[in-house]
Amino acid sequence: MTDPRLTPLAAALPATVPFTGPEALERRLGRPFAARLGANESGWGPSPRAVEAMSRAARDAWMYGDPEVNDLRAAIAAHHGCDRAHVVVGEGIDGLLGLLVRLTVGPGTAVATSVGAYPTFNFHVAGFGGRLLTVPYRDDAANPEALMGLAQEAGARLVYIANPDNPMGGMHGPETIRRMVEAVPDGALLVLDEAYAELAPEGSLPEIDPADPRVIRFRTFSKAHGLAGLRVGYAVGPAPLVAAFDRVRNHFGLGRVAQAGALAAIGDRDWPREVAGRVAAAREEIGRAARAAGLRPLPSCTNFVAIDCGRDGAFARRVLEGLLARGVFVRMPGVAPLDRCIRVTAGPETAVAAFATALPEALEEAGPSD
Amino acid sequence: MTDPRLTPLAAALPATVPFTGPEALERRLGRPFAARLGANESGWGPSPRAVEAMSRAARDAWMYGDPEVNDLRAAIAAHHGCDRAHVVVGEGIDGLLGLLVRLTVGPGTAVATSVGAYPTFNFHVAGFGGRLLTVPYRDDAANPEALMGLAQEAGARLVYIANPDNPMGGMHGPETIRRMVEAVPDGALLVLDEAYAELAPEGSLPEIDPADPRVIRFRTFSKAHGLAGLRVGYAVGPAPLVAAFDRVRNHFGLGRVAQAGALAAIGDRDWPREVAGRVAAAREEIGRAARAAGLRPLPSCTNFVAIDCGRDGAFARRVLEGLLARGVFVRMPGVAPLDRCIRVTAGPETAVAAFATALPEALEEAGPSD
Repeated sequence: MTDPRLTPLAAALPATVPFTGPEALERRLGRPFAARLGANESGWGPSPRAVEAMSRAARDAWMYGDPEVNDLRAAIAAHHGCDRAHVVVGEGIDGLLGLLVRLTVGPGTAVATSVGAYPTFNFHVAGFGGRLLTVPYRDDAANPEALMGLAQEAGARLVYIANPDNPMGGMHGPETIRRMVEAVPDGALLVLDEAYAELAPEGSLPEIDPADPRVIRFRTFSKAHGLAGLRVGYAVGPAPLVAAFDRVRNHFGLGRVAQAGALAAIGDRDWPREVAGRVAAAREEIGRAARAAGLRPLPSCTNFVAIDCGRDGAFARRVLEGLLARGVFVRMPGVAPLDRCIRVTAGPETAVAAFATALPEALEEAGPSD
Repeated sequence: MTDPRLTPLAAALPATVPFTGPEALERRLGRPFAARLGANESGWGPSPRAVEAMSRAARDAWMYGDPEVNDLRAAIAAHHGCDRAHVVVGEGIDGLLGLLVRLTVGPGTAVATSVGAYPTFNFHVAGFGGRLLTVPYRDDAANPEALMGLAQEAGARLVYIANPDNPMGGMHGPETIRRMVEAVPDGALLVLDEAYAELAPEGSLPEIDPADPRVIRFRTFSKAHGLAGLRVGYAVGPAPLVAAFDRVRNHFGLGRVAQAGALAAIGDRDWPREVAGRVAAAREEIGRAARAAGLRPLPSCTNFVAIDCGRDGAFARRVLEGLLARGVFVRMPGVAPLDRCIRVTAGPETAVAAFATALPEALEEAGPSD
C-alpha cells in the first residue's frame, strides 16, 4: 500500500533501492563475510591521523558541525589550487549528485548516461522526474562521442561519466575528457564523477579550470581515503552553480565528526599514496587469481578489478552467488554485456586470499565452461 | 549571477540559509565564543558510551554504514515499543523533514505552520515549491485550533507543530495534541516535531499509535543525547509513509560512525535523564539571571529559555548583539511578536555564568528601558 498523500511523482517511483548493503546479505546468510570486497571500500582503513581526529571530535559531538564547512572547504580548495567558492562539500558523492539533480532536473528533463553506469545517479534522476537517456559502453568503457552526440540530439541538461570508470575500472585519458568538455552542448553540464581519482595513474587526470561552466567534478573521501563510513564527498565547479547548492542542501547535514575526519584525511598527503601502492599490489593478486582460474581480469585504474567470467550474466551471477556462499562479498555490474563480469575490490591480503581460494570452487559450482 | 541550467523552481529560490552557524560568527568576531548557548546543543556532551562507540567506529570508518540502518532502527523501535517498519532514520530531523516535504509537497501544495516556527521546515517547503500558510502564535505558543482550521480551509497536506515548542519553550499537553490528531483533515498529515521530547516533564508527551496514518513524529539525538555533531534523527509513523522514504533517501547517507554513536546513545537510558536534570537546574539559573536583570523568563520544557526583553525586536536584537560581543552566543526568534525575546540554551555552569555576567552589561548598552 502506498501512502495516498505522496506527490504524483513520489507515488510513481519504484520502492527499489540502488544497492543492497553487505550487512543485509550477512543477515540473510546468518554470518559475517570473511572478505568484504564488494563495495570498493579501502580495507586498509583511514589515515591514522583521521582516526585520531574522529576520536577527538567524538567528545565534541554535542556541537553541530560548521554549516559553512569553512575549514574543510578551505583545505580542499588549497588542495585543488582554487578558491573555496568553487567547492561544495556534502554527504558523499551520492548526496551531492542528488542535490545537483534536484537543482537542474525537473519532470521530463533529458539526462544522458551510459547503460550500466552508476545506478545511484539514475536513482536521483528518476527521483526528480528526469528522462534518462543512455548509450551503451564500447569496449567496456563509456563512449564519450556517443554520450555527447546523444546530449546534443536530446538537449540533455546533464551528461554523466565516471572517470576512472565504475563498474569496469578503466579510464579515458586527459585528452579525451578535455574533448568531452569542449563538446558539452549549450545549456548542458558534464557531471564528471572522479570517485577513484586518487587511485588513477600519475598524470592520467585532466586539468580542468574550476571556473569552467561546462563541467562539475566530484571527489570523495570514501575510496583512497578509507572513509566510506563517514560520508563526505565534494564537488569542484563553477561558482554560480556551487553557490546554488546552498539553496537546497541540508545545511547542518555534515556533522562535526565527519568534518574533522575529512580535514585530517586531506591533510595527510602520504596515506592515499600509500594506499594506492597497496591497491596496485592487490589488483595484481586479484588478476593472478582470475587468470589461474581461467578468467580474464580487465585493466583497472581503480581499487577494484572487473573479471570477465567469459559467459553471460546468468553465469557470472552464479559465480558471484558461489563467492557469497563462501563468505566472500563481491558485486557485479547490473546490465549486459557488462554483467558477464564480477567486480572484486582490491583489499588487504587475507581478504584477497579468501577470494582466490573461493573463486575456483565457485566457478566449478557455477557449471561447466563452454 | 545564477547558473542558467537551474530548474525554474531552483532559480526562484532565495540564496539565504536557515541559520548562521556560531563558527561563522566567531570568524567575524575574530575569536571563539566563551559560551556557546545559541543552538540548543547539550554542553554536557554525549553519553560516555556513545563517545567510546564513536571512537571504536572511527577505525572501522572505511566501511559504509548499513544502508538499512538495521540495528539502530531495531533499537529505536524497541524503545518506542513498535515494529521497525514504523521507523526511518536519517541525517537529523532537518534531513528527514526535507525528505518528507519532497515526498508530499509539489508546486503549489498548501502547508500549514505557525509564524515564527522552525525556519528549516519552511526552507524545505519553499525548496519544493509548496505554498506556506501560517497562523500566529497565541500566548507564545502554537495555536492548535487555528492551525487545524487553516489546514481544513486551505486543504493543507502538512501541518507542522513543534511540541515542546521551539523557539518559545512551552508545550501543549497530551490531550491537546490528541485533539489535533483527531482534527487532521482527510489527506493531511500532522508533522509533530518532538526534538525536545526527552527534556519534557514526565507524562507530558502524548501516546500515539505509530500506525496512526494522521501523524508522523520526529525525534533527534541532537538535544538530550548530546549528538548534534553526529546528525542522526528519526521519525516514527505509519508504515506505508515510512516505506516511501526509501524511494528518495540517500541510502548510504548515514555513516557507520553515526550509526554506532546513536546506537550506543539509545542504549544508555541514564544519560538523557541525567542531562535532563542538569538542564532543569541550568534553566533555573538562566531564569534567575534574567529576573535579576529585570527581564521575564518564559516557562520551558526544553533545554533553552526564551527571555522576554520587554520591548520590541530591535531592542532584543541589540541585547543579543551585546551578548555576542561579550563572547556569549545566543539566538532569538525571527519574527514579531516572538522576537521581543532572546533564546538562551541551558548549558554547563561556566557558560551560564558567562551569560549571567554579560546580560546586565548588554542590557545597559542596548539602551534605556522605557
